[in-house]
Amino acid sequence: MKAFFTVLAIVWLPNLLGAQDKKGIEVLDDQKAIDELFRLSLTESSVYPWLGDMCLNIGPRLSGSKQAEEAVEYSFDLMQELGVNPQKQPVMVPHWVRGEKEMAFIKSSGGTKLEVNVLALGGSIATAEDGFMAPIIEVETWEDLAALGEEKIKGKIVFFNEEMNPENIYTFHSYGHCVQHRWGGAVEAAKYGAVGAIVRSLNLRIDEFPHTGSMSYENAVDTIPAAAISTRDAEIVSDLLAKGEKVELFWKQSCQTLPDVPSHNVIGEIKGSKYPDQIILLGGHLDSWDVGHGAHDDGAGVMQSLAVLELLKKSGYQPKRTIRVVFFMNEENGLRGAKEYAEQSKKQGLNHVACIESDRGGFTPRGFHVEGNEKLVQKIISFKPALEKYGVHQLEEGGSGADIGPLKTDDNVLIGFVPDSQRYFDYHHSPTDTFDAVNKRELELGTASITALVYLIDKYGLK
Amino acid sequence: MKAFFTVLAIVWLPNLLGAQDKKGIEVLDDQKAIDELFRLSLTESSVYPWLGDMCLNIGPRLSGSKQAEEAVEYSFDLMQELGVNPQKQPVMVPHWVRGEKEMAFIKSSGGTKLEVNVLALGGSIATAEDGFMAPIIEVETWEDLAALGEEKIKGKIVFFNEEMNPENIYTFHSYGHCVQHRWGGAVEAAKYGAVGAIVRSLNLRIDEFPHTGSMSYENAVDTIPAAAISTRDAEIVSDLLAKGEKVELFWKQSCQTLPDVPSHNVIGEIKGSKYPDQIILLGGHLDSWDVGHGAHDDGAGVMQSLAVLELLKKSGYQPKRTIRVVFFMNEENGLRGAKEYAEQSKKQGLNHVACIESDRGGFTPRGFHVEGNEKLVQKIISFKPALEKYGVHQLEEGGSGADIGPLKTDDNVLIGFVPDSQRYFDYHHSPTDTFDAVNKRELELGTASITALVYLIDKYGLK
Repeated sequence: MKAFFTVLAIVWLPNLLGAQDKKGIEVLDDQKAIDELFRLSLTESSVYPWLGDMCLNIGPRLSGSKQAEEAVEYSFDLMQELGVNPQKQPVMVPHWVRGEKEMAFIKSSGGTKLEVNVLALGGSIATAEDGFMAPIIEVETWEDLAALGEEKIKGKIVFFNEEMNPENIYTFHSYGHCVQHRWGGAVEAAKYGAVGAIVRSLNLRIDEFPHTGSMSYENAVDTIPAAAISTRDAEIVSDLLAKGEKVELFWKQSCQTLPDVPSHNVIGEIKGSKYPDQIILLGGHLDSWDVGHGAHDDGAGVMQSLAVLELLKKSGYQPKRTIRVVFFMNEENGLRGAKEYAEQSKKQGLNHVACIESDRGGFTPRGFHVEGNEKLVQKIISFKPALEKYGVHQLEEGGSGADIGPLKTDDNVLIGFVPDSQRYFDYHHSPTDTFDAVNKRELELGTASITALVYLIDKYGLK
Repeated sequence: MKAFFTVLAIVWLPNLLGAQDKKGIEVLDDQKAIDELFRLSLTESSVYPWLGDMCLNIGPRLSGSKQAEEAVEYSFDLMQELGVNPQKQPVMVPHWVRGEKEMAFIKSSGGTKLEVNVLALGGSIATAEDGFMAPIIEVETWEDLAALGEEKIKGKIVFFNEEMNPENIYTFHSYGHCVQHRWGGAVEAAKYGAVGAIVRSLNLRIDEFPHTGSMSYENAVDTIPAAAISTRDAEIVSDLLAKGEKVELFWKQSCQTLPDVPSHNVIGEIKGSKYPDQIILLGGHLDSWDVGHGAHDDGAGVMQSLAVLELLKKSGYQPKRTIRVVFFMNEENGLRGAKEYAEQSKKQGLNHVACIESDRGGFTPRGFHVEGNEKLVQKIISFKPALEKYGVHQLEEGGSGADIGPLKTDDNVLIGFVPDSQRYFDYHHSPTDTFDAVNKRELELGTASITALVYLIDKYGLK
């Protein structure tokens, strides 16, 4: 693989030095130090070419795939070049494969015949080998499903058509509400004898792209195939049903779950000069869904996390605490990497004083959501005045990230990086999540924002 | 033309009413009222379909073009449907036409022969009819130009290659610095005997799209053709020159300036119930460059301004002051509409207490820049706590907008709407400024932010 980033070098900023025995941004006051971190990120960061290399030369990286292992090697090599002492942490991961491209069309009693775009949900079983056809019945809520009951549902495909609520300014709140149907729709529909579950894509705009994501089965319930349908096609189906037409769906998908395979988390770090046992962890997930490039979700997050270490090195800052980056494997359909990392950390007695996850896209930074020990939460929020100048205003209590969740203790703090959320669900889990949907400057500003927070936590501590 | 917006209706929100004699958001406290404005904008605004209609059915709208006049009619019709008493204000505008698509390639002494993407600057003369070829000489600053002098410049094409500074977080600051070469490069180069001026596109990313914009000639100086070259091609030319190669440019463009033609500003308003003579003006410019759709620049701004009136009507708010929207004609290459509007306003003795321009793209709102009477500026900034919840944090002193500039008095305040600036120059004045580059929610949030500020100004006044 041809990497298009240039060789990294530690920049000592000699012209900024006021004292002979101190280096880099350590001699600057906080505002000037953070100015310098933003300047470096906007002019010298490798985050964009790193992400570009991974997206364009490897592509999407579903757990268990050849590309996921290529991404592990690529990440290890990047960390080695950066000199952050990389290690691969073994973990067994699920291995679900999509097989052939899905095929689907609708036929209505009024004479409409139309191809529709569906994408199997991760973990779903296949349809019959040659596909099948069944009537569609639409619901919006679990209550709708229960009200229809077995009599009306048996033998049909249940179409979960809850729209993401456009009223929430922070779009993740709308996602959090709707995702239950994607996750549990097949189980609940099967309880009433449904033969398949189709879920409206979790996308706030109307377009032709289906958005996948993980789903589940339960042991005691029949397994039925599940897929997402594009919002445009969801609207078409719903309109036909609203007119009183009968709508049938022909649907063929050939996905399957193979035995678990070995994979890895990839870990790198800069050892702390004063408190090496106190770890400030930065991370995202290396795996992605198998469509698009996994650019925003979560190539952006892992490369930003690593670019924080690059930026600290370039700035000449010597962290007192250990700054560790973890590229977690298998966030999307199992969280195995996160669980394994947490388990091994416990065995080793590691002390993660703060963990920061970037897994909400590579968009313009808006703030951080903080959870954990209340005193530490308030300490993080107290850094707000130092960050507002850079457009980072929203330091608030809130959820952090799936991968760092298992690292929560009574004494630490978990932080989710919060970029602007308006466009995220245009790309999330869909073929549109490609490198060209990432803006270089937005990605770099995110990197700088996280680095600035790490700098403040390391400099002032959290006690 | 088929409009895809639906018929508008005033929503009285009967279920929110606490008093029989009051209506809509007037009965709510400020936070609830602004919540309601955002909710309405994200669920019922016509701003996105209005903009889509104009971009996709009319397209770009350079002053003097047939499309500009179609846009005047379209805007008038929209205002009529909305019931805001539209009027067309006549104004004579420049009529510059691009003619055939530009053609250009480079030939270097090292054997490189390559087509490059150039776009005539607005106001430029044509090249010789069959094009011409001349050596390229690169400069970054006016000082470079003076240092080279007539001996080295005569007979050559001067290539102004100043990069936009990536270090500014607010990208307009970088634009403000570089734009001098686009505006004045042909004049300064001609003083030394240059036969043409090529300017690096004002774009922070490296891509193949040239970005046009206005330029000027001076009476006593020879007129030479001027064009923008894409950032990718600017880098290629600069690299060849840095290697010591001689680079010649073949260049053909057939643009010309025709006699001025009549056009119009389009004005609509809701009369104030208590202080009808106090005008709060909202505006943007209806004209655009002749490439792309003029979607962000400034279709977004005019449609947001009109959508503020729609939103006020939908909310049931009865403004005490007159809320006037102006779609200015010819901001891009003459500012004739703005000057005419200001002149007529002076004649009529109109009192514009506050003017708000939206002309920085349809991106996620970040704040407002405010200038004018110091007391009023501070009053506007004092509204900040009411807007932060919606991500609108940056109420600061700063420049407002080109179209409202002529309306400045000692007693009023001019306000520029500030959306996120990171992506603006990816699209500005280029073929990429198309409707699909506008995110519906970002556009709607901008509309809501402006409406909220208008609501606060109208409710509390500015004294």
